Amino acid sequence: MQLEFWFEFASTYSHPAAQRIEALAAERGVHVAWRAFLLGPIFREQGWNDSPFNLYPAKGRYMWRDLERICEAHGVDYRRPGVFPRSGLLAARVACRFEAERWLPEFVRRVYHANFAEDRDIASEEVVASCLAAAGAEPAAVLPQAARPEAKAALRARTEEAARRGIFGAPSFTVGDELYWGHDRMQDALSLAART
Amino acid sequence: MQLEFWFEFASTYSHPAAQRIEALAAERGVHVAWRAFLLGPIFREQGWNDSPFNLYPAKGRYMWRDLERICEAHGVDYRRPGVFPRSGLLAARVACRFEAERWLPEFVRRVYHANFAEDRDIASEEVVASCLAAAGAEPAAVLPQAARPEAKAALRARTEEAARRGIFGAPSFTVGDELYWGHDRMQDALSLAART
Repeated sequence: MQLEFWFEFASTYSHPAAQRIEALAAERGVHVAWRAFLLGPIFREQGWNDSPFNLYPAKGRYMWRDLERICEAHGVDYRRPGVFPRSGLLAARVACRFEAERWLPEFVRRVYHANFAEDRDIASEEVVASCLAAAGAEPAAVLPQAARPEAKAALRARTEEAARRGIFGAPSFTVGDELYWGHDRMQDALSLAART
Repeated sequence: MQLEFWFEFASTYSHPAAQRIEALAAERGVHVAWRAFLLGPIFREQGWNDSPFNLYPAKGRYMWRDLERICEAHGVDYRRPGVFPRSGLLAARVACRFEAERWLPEFVRRVYHANFAEDRDIASEEVVASCLAAAGAEPAAVLPQAARPEAKAALRARTEEAARRGIFGAPSFTVGDELYWGHDRMQDALSLAART
């Protein structure tokens, strides 16, 4: 069965998940469907106008240290970004519009690396374009497509689907109706997908 | 080095942690210091007057399923309680006042089992007394001690210490200044304690 990988570009723990998932899935013969969505509308439904890591400082302090430990343990590049959260809206429109392209996984990894290892502003078109080029896509063809009303509508629909399927954070993983939340649950989700 | 295990009797994920920690620590030669505290005052500081699993229903629905999966994977008895959260105040006063007693770990496990496997009301003195007796303690000697002002003050001080040390949820684990949050981090915390 396929596993759906739900990610939000501003999400810290989605960084190690995005960097690692494809290799782990390949080991198990699992197909990964990449699902970009936005946490902002879901957080606003819960009354949050910012990342919970900013709203709850003790949780935020812990998260940065925990993320550092996780990236170190798994050999994932990491440097704490100077701005958090950064808007992943443009990158998410690209990722949603082109989710089945061969270059998509590498593009997603490049965007996370830009934000969480190079401290670059992923909200800027220039950075997104450089990630596209590095992944083998054509920025001049992709970016105008991602700005079209259909691409915006597709991302809104994905975000609504996420909420409808019980997703409240990122990264999340779905295998049929079974939901897993957090980088910590990636292995469990992959194991279920491999069995079914 | 010793590991401090911070638990709150109302906390769902503290149930599998409490049932499992002593055996895992023994395998590694790690000493566990049991640290009962209260999440209520810490949650109130964050503006919450209830469990976040009740305040954020999508997160709550997920947690119950996730907890069920975890307990099943580790062979920990589990049945979803009819009331959540239940007050663990009395049990926490006992656990804090008598934290170094030989019967303490078994008492803690019995209380979690009563709440999260037998659906019994751990706020009642009768249930706490039965857990004490089952753990080999003497309820008629213990309960009056736990009701004394010194016992109440000790639990308040522990809770303040938890907040001061950056703890914002349960279960948590500390090894020196290093903090780990969640049943998912128990193995990492034990590994660090075994190395240092």
